[in-house]
Amino acid sequence: MRFVYDFDEDSGGGRELLGGKGVGLTEMTALGVPVPAGFTITTDACRAYLSAGGTVPDGLDAEVAAHITALEQRSGKRFGDPVDPLLVSVRSGAAVSMPGMMDTILNLGLSDTAVEGLAASTGNPRFAYDSYRRLIQMYGEVVDGVPGHRFEQTLVDLKTRAGARQDVDLGPDELRELIVSFGRIYEEETGSTFPQDAAEQLRRATRAVFDSWHSPRAQVYRRTYEIPDDIGTAVNIVQMVFGNKGAGSGTGVCFTRDPSTGEARLYGEFLANAQGEDVVAGIRTPQPIEQMREELPVAYEQLLDTLRRLEQHYRDAQDVEFTVEDGRLYLLQTRTAKRTAAAALKIAVDMVDEGVISSEEAVARIDPSQLDQLLHPMIDPDAPVEVIAKGLNASPGAASGAIVLDADTAEARGKAGEAVVLVRWETTPDDFHGMLHARGILTAHGGLTSHAAVVARGMGKPCVTGCEALTVDTNARTVEIAGHSLREGDLITINGATGEVMLGAVPVVPPRLNDDFTRILGFADEIRRLRVRTNADSPADAAKAREFGAEGIGLCRTEHMFQDEGRLELMREMILACDEAGRRAALDRLLPIQQGDFEGIFEAMRGFPVTIRLLDWPLHEFLPSLDEVEDEPTRERVHSLQEANPMLGFRAARLGLFYPEIYEMQVRAIARAAVAVRARSGEVPLVEIMHPLVAFEEELRRLRELTERVVLEEAPDIAFSIGTMIELPRACVRADEIARQADFFSFGTNDLTQTALGLSRDDAGRFLAHYLESGVLEHDPFETIDQSGVGDLMRIAIERGRGEKPGLKMGICGEHGGEPKSVAFCHGLGLDYVSCSPYRVPLARLAAAQAALAERGVKAAVAGG
Amino acid sequence: MRFVYDFDEDSGGGRELLGGKGVGLTEMTALGVPVPAGFTITTDACRAYLSAGGTVPDGLDAEVAAHITALEQRSGKRFGDPVDPLLVSVRSGAAVSMPGMMDTILNLGLSDTAVEGLAASTGNPRFAYDSYRRLIQMYGEVVDGVPGHRFEQTLVDLKTRAGARQDVDLGPDELRELIVSFGRIYEEETGSTFPQDAAEQLRRATRAVFDSWHSPRAQVYRRTYEIPDDIGTAVNIVQMVFGNKGAGSGTGVCFTRDPSTGEARLYGEFLANAQGEDVVAGIRTPQPIEQMREELPVAYEQLLDTLRRLEQHYRDAQDVEFTVEDGRLYLLQTRTAKRTAAAALKIAVDMVDEGVISSEEAVARIDPSQLDQLLHPMIDPDAPVEVIAKGLNASPGAASGAIVLDADTAEARGKAGEAVVLVRWETTPDDFHGMLHARGILTAHGGLTSHAAVVARGMGKPCVTGCEALTVDTNARTVEIAGHSLREGDLITINGATGEVMLGAVPVVPPRLNDDFTRILGFADEIRRLRVRTNADSPADAAKAREFGAEGIGLCRTEHMFQDEGRLELMREMILACDEAGRRAALDRLLPIQQGDFEGIFEAMRGFPVTIRLLDWPLHEFLPSLDEVEDEPTRERVHSLQEANPMLGFRAARLGLFYPEIYEMQVRAIARAAVAVRARSGEVPLVEIMHPLVAFEEELRRLRELTERVVLEEAPDIAFSIGTMIELPRACVRADEIARQADFFSFGTNDLTQTALGLSRDDAGRFLAHYLESGVLEHDPFETIDQSGVGDLMRIAIERGRGEKPGLKMGICGEHGGEPKSVAFCHGLGLDYVSCSPYRVPLARLAAAQAALAERGVKAAVAGG
Repeated sequence: MRFVYDFDEDSGGGRELLGGKGVGLTEMTALGVPVPAGFTITTDACRAYLSAGGTVPDGLDAEVAAHITALEQRSGKRFGDPVDPLLVSVRSGAAVSMPGMMDTILNLGLSDTAVEGLAASTGNPRFAYDSYRRLIQMYGEVVDGVPGHRFEQTLVDLKTRAGARQDVDLGPDELRELIVSFGRIYEEETGSTFPQDAAEQLRRATRAVFDSWHSPRAQVYRRTYEIPDDIGTAVNIVQMVFGNKGAGSGTGVCFTRDPSTGEARLYGEFLANAQGEDVVAGIRTPQPIEQMREELPVAYEQLLDTLRRLEQHYRDAQDVEFTVEDGRLYLLQTRTAKRTAAAALKIAVDMVDEGVISSEEAVARIDPSQLDQLLHPMIDPDAPVEVIAKGLNASPGAASGAIVLDADTAEARGKAGEAVVLVRWETTPDDFHGMLHARGILTAHGGLTSHAAVVARGMGKPCVTGCEALTVDTNARTVEIAGHSLREGDLITINGATGEVMLGAVPVVPPRLNDDFTRILGFADEIRRLRVRTNADSPADAAKAREFGAEGIGLCRTEHMFQDEGRLELMREMILACDEAGRRAALDRLLPIQQGDFEGIFEAMRGFPVTIRLLDWPLHEFLPSLDEVEDEPTRERVHSLQEANPMLGFRAARLGLFYPEIYEMQVRAIARAAVAVRARSGEVPLVEIMHPLVAFEEELRRLRELTERVVLEEAPDIAFSIGTMIELPRACVRADEIARQADFFSFGTNDLTQTALGLSRDDAGRFLAHYLESGVLEHDPFETIDQSGVGDLMRIAIERGRGEKPGLKMGICGEHGGEPKSVAFCHGLGLDYVSCSPYRVPLARLAAAQAALAERGVKAAVAGG
Repeated sequence: MRFVYDFDEDSGGGRELLGGKGVGLTEMTALGVPVPAGFTITTDACRAYLSAGGTVPDGLDAEVAAHITALEQRSGKRFGDPVDPLLVSVRSGAAVSMPGMMDTILNLGLSDTAVEGLAASTGNPRFAYDSYRRLIQMYGEVVDGVPGHRFEQTLVDLKTRAGARQDVDLGPDELRELIVSFGRIYEEETGSTFPQDAAEQLRRATRAVFDSWHSPRAQVYRRTYEIPDDIGTAVNIVQMVFGNKGAGSGTGVCFTRDPSTGEARLYGEFLANAQGEDVVAGIRTPQPIEQMREELPVAYEQLLDTLRRLEQHYRDAQDVEFTVEDGRLYLLQTRTAKRTAAAALKIAVDMVDEGVISSEEAVARIDPSQLDQLLHPMIDPDAPVEVIAKGLNASPGAASGAIVLDADTAEARGKAGEAVVLVRWETTPDDFHGMLHARGILTAHGGLTSHAAVVARGMGKPCVTGCEALTVDTNARTVEIAGHSLREGDLITINGATGEVMLGAVPVVPPRLNDDFTRILGFADEIRRLRVRTNADSPADAAKAREFGAEGIGLCRTEHMFQDEGRLELMREMILACDEAGRRAALDRLLPIQQGDFEGIFEAMRGFPVTIRLLDWPLHEFLPSLDEVEDEPTRERVHSLQEANPMLGFRAARLGLFYPEIYEMQVRAIARAAVAVRARSGEVPLVEIMHPLVAFEEELRRLRELTERVVLEEAPDIAFSIGTMIELPRACVRADEIARQADFFSFGTNDLTQTALGLSRDDAGRFLAHYLESGVLEHDPFETIDQSGVGDLMRIAIERGRGEKPGLKMGICGEHGGEPKSVAFCHGLGLDYVSCSPYRVPLARLAAAQAALAERGVKAAVAGG
C-alpha cells in the first residue's frame, strides 16, 4: 500500500483518501493554479497508524523521505540545511473539516543554526527569527502540549518592555531574544530542548496530526455531525511560502461571492507582510481585499483570474487562502464557501442564470434546515447577547418581551400592545388565549412536541420548552432562571431556533423572503413527487400556508375551534350535561359556529383538498382544573374525567363511538359548510373527513357508517372522502383490515412515536435531553422520524394497507412532515403527501425535491455547505 | 338436497346437520337404546328457510309427509286420525343448545274429534283431555304468541272452583271444560279457531322453530358465546310416548354421575304419571330417582343398564330425559352432563381410573376458566344475594367486610381483626398497606389491569374495579352505590369473579383444592411443552406459587419491596436527595434490605430460575401527593417529577440510565444475595436480571455493561443471565438489534397492549366496557391477548429476535400469562414459558397442556361442557 502522493500525482482517490485540503491542492495543481509544491500523506496511513494503536505503519517514513528528497530537488534547497534550508508546513486535512483537530504548523525545518542560514540567505534576519519563534510556539503547543499562554505572556512582556504596539514592531534582536525565551519555555515544559533535527520535527508533527483525531473535541464534533469515527485524516506537507517577507509579500482569505448576501463580488481580507495565522488569529486588523489592488496589483489580477477559474471548475462559490511571496501568488487552500441561507439562495439562483449549474443542482445545494432561519424573526446577528439558560428549540424564531406568568395577564398586557413572553411550568389548553397574545412562550417542562411546542409552532410563534433551569412561583410573581431572579414584567428574550434564553430585550429582525427564495422553490416544485400540504386550523393559517405554497390542508384540528371565547363555555356545557339530550342541546349551538369555521377554511383552500380531523382531545382538556371548580356535581364530573394517562385514554374515535352525537355534529357542520360554499362559489370543496386514533377495523367501520349517514342527510350529492389517522402500532400491523374502511391513511407520527417508543412527548424533556447528550440516541425522535422503529411500523402499514387496497392515498400529518430528513424518508416510503405547519411548507417543498433528486443520484448539500 | 332423516337412517352428517338432540336420538337408535320413533328435519332446511327470508324450501313438505307416512306404517296409527290418532312432539335442536329458541310442543295431531278418539282408544278420557289442553296451551304460546298467563289464570281459576290442589286432581269433565276455555282464549288472541288439521299443526310448528332462531334472546346468547349466526337449528318430530297414562307411567331426568360433586352415582328426579314438562315447570315436586326403583322396578333396571351403555358409548357423564309409558322405557334425550369445576375434575380422574378415557382426554375435558372458581373464596352458592351494582371482575374471589375509605383506616381496622373492604375512586401505591389489610378492594375507576386490579391479583385478593355506579366522599365518609347511600363501616360484599357488588355480608366459602385437582395437573404436566412460572415479589408468594406448581419466577417486581414501613422513607430520601452523593447514601441503606428480600426469594425458589426486574416505576409513585407536602423544596421536587402520562414517562430503563446508582444498587443486592445463598445452601441460585421498557439496543447495551461491571465486582464466579422485557412496539420491530444484547426476552404484554393499542389500563374502564358491550371488541385485550394486533407484534419480535440469535429464550410475564386463550397463543408462538400470578399457575399448567394437545388434534372442552 502506498501512503504518500505528490500534489501533481494522480492518486486515483478523492477526498476520502487525500482529505479536503489535499484534494484541493492536488486539483489546483492539475488546473495550473499556482500552489506551493508538496505532498499528501493519505488517510490510509492515518487509519493504519490508529488501528495499530499509534504505531507508524511500515514504509511511511521511507516514502515521506523520498518525497522530501523530490521537494529538495525541485526547490534546490535541502530540508534541515543550515545554510539555505527548505521549510515546510504540516497541515491536517480530513475529508470533512473538523474543529478540535490539530490544524497547522508552519516553518518546519528551522533550527538554531538553520535560522541563521535563512537570515543570511534571505538577507532578512527579522523574517528568519520571526519564522523560528513561530515554529517553536506552534510546535510546542500542538505537538507537545505546552500551554500557549506561556508563549503569549512572554511575547506581551517583551512588547511592553520594547514599547512595541504590534508584533511587527519588534526588531530582529528582540525576536532573537524571544527565540531563546521560547526555547527555555519549551524545555521547562517538556524536559527536552527544542528538536533540532528537521526530519524528527516532521515525524513528530505528522504523528501529532494523527493523534489529534481522537481529541475529545473532535470526537464530540464527529458525534454531533454523524461523521464516522474510523475514517481518519490526511496530512499535507507543503513547501513554505512567505507572506511575511516584506513589502512585496502578504496573505489573505477571500470568497468568490459575498457569503452573507450572495452578491457576485469579491469578498475578503488582505494583510501585507504577514503570515496567514495573523489573519486568522486577529493579531493585526486586516484590510479589505480591494486594498490589495493598490499594493500588489499584479498578484491581485492573478488572484481574480484564478478565482474565476476555480469557480468555473468547482461550479460553486469558493473560499480560498492565499499568500503572495515577493510578488508571486500562491493559493494555499480552496473550498466550497460557507454561506448564510440568503446567500445560498442568491448564489444558486445566480449560477442558474449564469448557466453554470442546472436548476436541479441549485435545488440540491440548499440546506432546508438552514432555510428555516429565513422564515422566522431572528436575533439581530450584530446584537451582543448573554445566554443564561438553554431549553429545547421548540418553535423557531426569536421573541423579546416582558415576562408574564399566566394566560390572563398575557392576554391583558398583550392586547394593550405590550410585547410579552408567557413563562409557565408548562402550558395547557387553558393557556391558549394567553399564548395567542404573547410574542413567545417559555416553559420549564415539556418536550419538542409538548402542548406549548405544538401550539406555538401552529401559531408560528417562538417557543422554548423543557428549560430545566427555570422555576416559576406564580404566588410571588417571580421566576428564577439559572440563578437569576426575575420578576413579572422583567424583559427576556428567547430564541426558539436554538433554545437559548437571554436577559433583556435583544433586538430581533424580521424574516427575509425574496425572489431567490421563490425561484428556488419554483425549481423544487418542478422536481418533487411528494405533495406538500399544511396543518392549519383557521382560514388565516390556511391563507398563510397557501402563500408558502401549500397544496391543501393535511390536518385541520377541530379542537382549537372550541377554545375561543363563548365556545369553550358551550363545550363545557356539553361535557357537563347529564344526558344525551343535554349534550345535543349544547352541540346544536356549537354546530353553526363550527360550520362557519369550516366555510372559511374551505374558501381559503379553494381547489385544494382539506382533511378535517374530528375531535381528538380528551374531554377533560376542555374543563377547568379541579381547584377552580366549586359546585359538587361539576367537581365530580371533572374528577371522574381525570385520567392517569390521557394520551392513552378516553379520546378521539373512542369518544366518537361513545358519544356519537359529537361526531355527528361535526360531520353535519362539515357537510353544511360544503353545501354553503358550493352555493356561493359554484365549486365543490374537496373534503376529507378523518377519524383519529383508530386501532380496530370495527371502530372505523362504525364511524364510517355514522359519517355516511349524516352526509346522506345533509349533502347527498357531494362526495366526501373518509379516512383515518394511522397513529397506533396496532393500526400499523392491522392496516390491511383498517384499509377496508378507509379512503385514505394519514400517518400521525407524533402519537405513533409516543406509542411505539412508549415515550410521552410531554414528559420526555428530562431524559430525552440526557439520551441525546450521552449518545443513546442520535436524533430526537419527535423531531426526526425514528426510521428503523416508527419508520418500520409505517413501512408495514403501507405494505399491508396497499396490499389490501392498491393505490390507497397516504400522507403524513405529524410534526415530522416539515423536517427534511423525515420528508426524504416519507418520499422513500412512497407516501403521496406530507403536511406540516405553514412556516415549514417551503422547507418541505425543498426537501421533497431533494429526495426526488437523491433518487436520481443527485446528492443534496450537507448542512452549512 | 335431502332435508329429512329418520332416526334409524344414516344421514352421513353429525351434530352440525342434525343438531344435538337429533344426533343423540339417532345415535341412541343405532345403539339399540329404546327411543320413540321419529325423524329429524336438518339444519340445511332451516338455513334454506332463513336465507329465503322465511320461505319453506321446495320439497320439504313432501319429505316430511313421506316420513309421517312411514311413522304411521310403523305405529299402525294415522296422523290426524279421529279414532286412534298418531301423536307427535316437535322439538328444536341446534348444534349447541340455546336459550330463547322455541323448545318443545307436545301432542301434535290432536283435534276436537281426535281427542275423543284418543279417549276411547286408550280408555283414558282424563289422559286424552289433559293431552289436548296441553297442546292448545303450548301451541298457542309458542306458535302464535298467545300470552301464557291467560291459560295459567284460567287453569288456576278452574282449580279453585273445583277445589283441586294440583293439576292431577282435575277430572275429565273439568279438563274438557278447560279445552273449551283454552280454545276460546286461542280464538280471542289469534282471531282464528285452534287448527284442527294435524298436517297444518306440524307445518306451523316447524316454521315456528325456524323463526325462533332469530328471537332476541337467542341472538344475544349467540353473541355472548360466539356461536355463528348462520348455522341454524334442526327440528325433531318424535312420536309421542306418554308418561301421564297412569300408574305404570312416569317421566324423569337424570345424570349418570353427580354433576355437583362428580361422584359416580345416579342423580336425578322422577315423577310418576306425568309428562316431562311437569318436571321442568316445577308444577309438581318430583321424587328422587331412587324412588323409581319402588314404583317401576323393571323400567328402573332397564334405565340403569341404558345409562351404563350410554356412558360407555359417549365416554363421558350423560344427562338424559326419559319417559315410561305403561311400564316401557323410552329415552328422549341424552347429552354431555354440565358439571361444576369440582365435579369435572372428579369425573375426569375417575374415568381415567376406570379405564374409560386416557389421561390426555381427561386434561382436554377440563375448562381452565372454570377451574378458576376452585382457587378463590367464593360466594356461598346457597346464600340469597342482592346485587346492587356491577363493575369489572378484576381479581377473582369474594370478600365481605366493612366499608373503609382510606388505606390507613383499612390498615388500622384490618390489623384489629376486622374484615374490611377498601373502597376508593382508584388506588395508588400509597394505598398499598391498606390493600394488604383489606379483604377486598372496590374502585370506581380503573380497568382490569389498573393499579388496584394488578396489585389485588398479585395478592390473590378479590377486587372489583371500574364500578361506574360508585361515588366516594371521603370528607363526609360516605359512599353512594347505584343510589344506595352507605357510611364507612357499613357492610358490603364484592364478587371479584363476576364484578358484582352486594349489600351486607354475604357468606363466603373457602377454595376447594383436592386430589382430583392435583392429579389432573399431574397429567397436564406430562403433556405440556410450555414451562409455567409465577409473578411473585416475596418469599411467601414464591412459596405459595411453588405449591401450585410454578417452575420458577418469571417476574419479580422490585418496587413493592420499597413500599413497606421504613423502606418508603428511604426511597423518598433517595429521590429527594439533591445530588448523587445523597442518593447513594440512601441507596446504601436500602441495599441490605433489598438483598435480604432477594435471599428469601432465591431460597424459596431453590432449583428454579428467578427473573428479577429492576426498578420499573416512575419516581413520583413513591412520593406523597402535592397536597400532602408542606416544605417548598420538596414541593418543587414533587412538582417537577409530576408527569402528564407517567406510563410513557421517566421510568424503568430510562431511570436506570439517568441515575445509574439505582440499578447498580439493585444489581449489587442481587449479586450479594446470590453469594450469600450459595454460601448457606451450596447451590447457586439461577438468577435472570431483567431490564424493563427497553426501546433501543443502545439502552440495553449500556445497562448490560453496568450490570456486568457490578456483577464482576460482587460475584465474578456466578453466571447471571441478563435480558429485557419486550413491552414496546419499537422493541418488537427492532428485536433483532435488541437480541444482540439479551440472553432472554420476556414479553410484558400489559404495557405492550397499552402502547400498541394506545390504551391506558387505568383509564380504559369507561369506554372499554362500552366497546365490549356494543361488540366493537370481542375480548378485553388486557384479559385475553389481542392476537392479531399485539400478537402480531410478538410474532414479529420472535421472528426477528431468534433470526438474530437462534434459540433465544423467550417468555411472557404480562397478566395474560395465566389466561387460557393467551396461554394457547403463547404455545403456538413457540415461547419457552408463561408466568402468571400464583393463583393462576394451575390454570396455566392446564391451558399449556391443552394447547399441546390441540396441536396433536385433541380438542379441549368448551366452557361449561
